[in-house]
Amino acid sequence: MFKNSKSRFDSISDGIFAVVLTIMVLNIKVPQSVSSSSINQLIKEILIYLTSVGVVSQYWFFHQEMFNAVKKIKNHIMILNMCFLTTVSLIPFATAWLNDNLFSRITVITFALVLAVANFFQYLMFKLILSDCPQINKHDLEEKRSALIMLIGSFFYLIIGGIFPPVLLILVILSLFIRSSVAHIIRHF
Amino acid sequence: MFKNSKSRFDSISDGIFAVVLTIMVLNIKVPQSVSSSSINQLIKEILIYLTSVGVVSQYWFFHQEMFNAVKKIKNHIMILNMCFLTTVSLIPFATAWLNDNLFSRITVITFALVLAVANFFQYLMFKLILSDCPQINKHDLEEKRSALIMLIGSFFYLIIGGIFPPVLLILVILSLFIRSSVAHIIRHF
Amino acid sequence: MFKNSKSRFDSISDGIFAVVLTIMVLNIKVPQSVSSSSINQLIKEILIYLTSVGVVSQYWFFHQEMFNAVKKIKNHIMILNMCFLTTVSLIPFATAWLNDNLFSRITVITFALVLAVANFFQYLMFKLILSDCPQINKHDLEEKRSALIMLIGSFFYLIIGGIFPPVLLILVILSLFIRSSVAHIIRHF
Amino acid sequence: MFKNSKSRFDSISDGIFAVVLTIMVLNIKVPQSVSSSSINQLIKEILIYLTSVGVVSQYWFFHQEMFNAVKKIKNHIMILNMCFLTTVSLIPFATAWLNDNLFSRITVITFALVLAVANFFQYLMFKLILSDCPQINKHDLEEKRSALIMLIGSFFYLIIGGIFPPVLLILVILSLFIRSSVAHIIRHF
Repeated sequence: MFKNSKSRFDSISDGIFAVVLTIMVLNIKVPQSVSSSSINQLIKEILIYLTSVGVVSQYWFFHQEMFNAVKKIKNHIMILNMCFLTTVSLIPFATAWLNDNLFSRITVITFALVLAVANFFQYLMFKLILSDCPQINKHDLEEKRSALIMLIGSFFYLIIGGIFPPVLLILVILSLFIRSSVAHIIRHF
Repeated sequence: MFKNSKSRFDSISDGIFAVVLTIMVLNIKVPQSVSSSSINQLIKEILIYLTSVGVVSQYWFFHQEMFNAVKKIKNHIMILNMCFLTTVSLIPFATAWLNDNLFSRITVITFALVLAVANFFQYLMFKLILSDCPQINKHDLEEKRSALIMLIGSFFYLIIGGIFPPVLLILVILSLFIRSSVAHIIRHF
Repeated sequence: MFKNSKSRFDSISDGIFAVVLTIMVLNIKVPQSVSSSSINQLIKEILIYLTSVGVVSQYWFFHQEMFNAVKKIKNHIMILNMCFLTTVSLIPFATAWLNDNLFSRITVITFALVLAVANFFQYLMFKLILSDCPQINKHDLEEKRSALIMLIGSFFYLIIGGIFPPVLLILVILSLFIRSSVAHIIRHF
Repeated sequence: MFKNSKSRFDSISDGIFAVVLTIMVLNIKVPQSVSSSSINQLIKEILIYLTSVGVVSQYWFFHQEMFNAVKKIKNHIMILNMCFLTTVSLIPFATAWLNDNLFSRITVITFALVLAVANFFQYLMFKLILSDCPQINKHDLEEKRSALIMLIGSFFYLIIGGIFPPVLLILVILSLFIRSSVAHIIRHF
């Protein structure tokens, strides 16, 4: 009688993504004055917020695509998914720390590390799901390759972020746009 | 195998709307005393809260109507929807700032700007969904026109809010009632 | 093409209930010491939390029962439901204020007023749904009568809370148990 | 017409689990400096966070398995489930207190007590669901036995935590791994 439920799996994942995406807005502090320094701080916080939301949205985007055709969720996928979602839940914390010390080595490395671990779990899930699937089309392999590129890219973030901390955020934003455009171009040609 | 899921799309949208609608209550600060000034401040915060909740509820109302008949979500709608939801997620911040400085030009303009951007994404989604749809009835066109009126109205807010900041909140409240009543009247005649 | 969606209606309602039920835990402040006064304060906060959770759970319980058989949600029910959920969303604030001033007249009256408004919207929804429904059984009428008793009871709270503030919480707790037991007894005889 | 809805039951449960799992991240405070003492504090907070997330995830895991085959939710299961979810909602508070005083007897006992009460409600639900179910297989009985072992184990936590507070967290982490591995081994032999 007892078995894993696909609809509950979707539901908890979307619930966690939805809360993560919205509680990050609590990191944007209300400016105490309208001096140019507090407005600059606000703009910086909004940019970091938008970047983090972009990153988490991308994870959600892949997640819903990946699990759309899966009918039965095995136990190890359940556990992996929880590890993935827990790592994603750490993004609001990593973002809050980044807000306070944008150019500090340790905050940048923490942010990059959280992304690297999330990318690792994401790639593992892609791999396991595809290995269980009888029919794989070209688009599926593309998405798996995307997940692999994200994983490799995140180690690259870690190294760059460790050497030139201020560059990380720009890299993350660039990679968001590059991935979307590349995917767009590939799909249309 | 991998493709976009309509049910996950609905689920993340409702999750984000639900969190946005409820975390705004955290902006209502518990009064430290029962002096008449702190009670006035409380009443002001509750009124702003109710206005923001009204605005976000209206977005949700349109959103569920708009996507009810859509069966397949294309990638560009997925991305537009995330942009729309991210803008809606900024409403709690804009509201918190408005709470602190109700009559300040910059907070009023920020609030109006967030609404304008959300209205823009909303109108774009209405347009794209209707352009993909084979059968359009009178009510659909009405809703699209409503979204356009909201978009134009929000530029009006921006200008009025920039010139007479204190008027914005009254405009937003009025427009909530006017839209509902107009829609009600149109439906019944 | 555009029309109201029952599944989205359920989904936003459950989302809001879920966030309301869980953010109230943030009102329980971590004690700064283990002196007997801070432990007493903690126990008081936990009791108030449990009472508020009980009240909100009861609203949810009625809500899911009431809308289970409804297939199409009309516009006025949509709007009434949002008004109801917004009032329920104010319960965390009313609870937080009660935490700080348990025996103050104004906090007790605010708490009772929020419940009264929620009970009013709840009763209105019960009435409208039943008036649209062709077949009504005995249990449905019982539930509508329950909603009416809750509404009348809440005016009673308002009066009692205004005269003897400390009695309100006891009344609310008692009524939670009485309703459950009465419903239980009625169902079994 | 009015009756309990299984889909709303699933939906509120997942919503509450999702918010509980994500608001615990707010307990991880952003370090004010990069001194080794604040980094140590941060690592400790992240470890406690991961442990609590592990505990709540396990509850969710059992919950979705347990209710997957249940089609109709009776009133007493509805009430028991709300009691269970309310207890789970107290875990973020218990975790926040543990963060501040990791080795204090009272915080450790509170944490263990919350787990014990949750385990008690969980076991009761397993028992009631199985007693209503016509066909029970070996795996179902295993899961019920697991819930019983968790319940007995939590009394053990209470005693050990009362005598040697610092040991509790290690016990909780160990039991997470032991349960998963034992379940894994049983399933494969």
